[in-house]
Amino acid sequence: MDALAVPCERGRGWYLSLMAPNAKGKNFAWLDPSRIYCNHQALSDCVKDLLQPFQNETIDLVAGIDAMGFILGSAVATTLGKGFLAIRKAGHLCVQTESQTYTDYSGREKLMEVRMDVLKPGLRVLLVDQWIETGGTMRAAISLVERLGATVVGVAVIAIESTEGGQWIKENYRYSHCIPEDLQAQIDKQYLESFKSFKNHTQ
Amino acid sequence: MDALAVPCERGRGWYLSLMAPNAKGKNFAWLDPSRIYCNHQALSDCVKDLLQPFQNETIDLVAGIDAMGFILGSAVATTLGKGFLAIRKAGHLCVQTESQTYTDYSGREKLMEVRMDVLKPGLRVLLVDQWIETGGTMRAAISLVERLGATVVGVAVIAIESTEGGQWIKENYRYSHCIPEDLQAQIDKQYLESFKSFKNHTQ
Repeated sequence: MDALAVPCERGRGWYLSLMAPNAKGKNFAWLDPSRIYCNHQALSDCVKDLLQPFQNETIDLVAGIDAMGFILGSAVATTLGKGFLAIRKAGHLCVQTESQTYTDYSGREKLMEVRMDVLKPGLRVLLVDQWIETGGTMRAAISLVERLGATVVGVAVIAIESTEGGQWIKENYRYSHCIPEDLQAQIDKQYLESFKSFKNHTQ
Repeated sequence: MDALAVPCERGRGWYLSLMAPNAKGKNFAWLDPSRIYCNHQALSDCVKDLLQPFQNETIDLVAGIDAMGFILGSAVATTLGKGFLAIRKAGHLCVQTESQTYTDYSGREKLMEVRMDVLKPGLRVLLVDQWIETGGTMRAAISLVERLGATVVGVAVIAIESTEGGQWIKENYRYSHCIPEDLQAQIDKQYLESFKSFKNHTQ
């Protein structure tokens, strides 16, 4: 499908067909959701779907996770008319930060940072990222927001894989995602297969 | 100034006072513009200022540069009702890409990538990033967009420092930035001083 074309019929999650499959082999993610953002109607419908479950909630601020969560998070913030807080990979912010270690999908330990002069008790924050795979990154972001006393209203991402960490987030926080029920199994099956090939690759 | 407060009087570039100064020493940038994005009115006014010079131009797509250009670029795209294309640091995209080397402000050679299935001749692209210092990053992004046949409508950033690269962009492309004329000297003076301390640091 042409990246910028807008089909006349647009069922729930129609824009997911814009995602591009991996063309570079097993050291890369199995698909690339960022092609969705190139299409104005897709970006707008995706943001609308992510916000729908939160329409009766007060949201003071949208926080997005470095780097792809910046795109979707900023689109969500702009649509809501709210500000946007960047949760960054360590080593970039020149101001005082609170930091949190986390283990990403590849098993590597990393550090995430947030500025200390914005979050405070009473502030209601919607957390946005592109995709939840193991959930380690989102869990670290939740921890940073809560440690500074703010409230996590919920978590909004394109997809939440049915991993232990993905399930933990679903059980403990309000959430929204864009995957229709009949496609969730494809997302999860893909997870199991890439996990298997990752294990084979590292053994 | 409280990050989320909206003053009653808002002169041109009022939101620049939200930027946070360096608190971590010379290995970091001299200020952090990303505090602007946390304030909904600041983000909205900043985007409006960046779009003002392009109001009579056709823009088909907004492209933002990894990572901070994603925030401002996505806000610009959402405000315009256009799609957003991510220009990425190398090694992340799992699809076929066109790439371009560039030298960043610290003198290190890096690689930038863009997917090949979106840009095409006739497409009019507005390039967005947070800040232009040496101009190397933006020049590489321009080169990628043009190599794939698309047209750079212009360049929109919070500030363009008066460096050789900054001047080159101003002379060759339409541009917008948020720095009132009487503050430009502060931006440039800072550049000279951080360049001097950078030189001292590396000698």
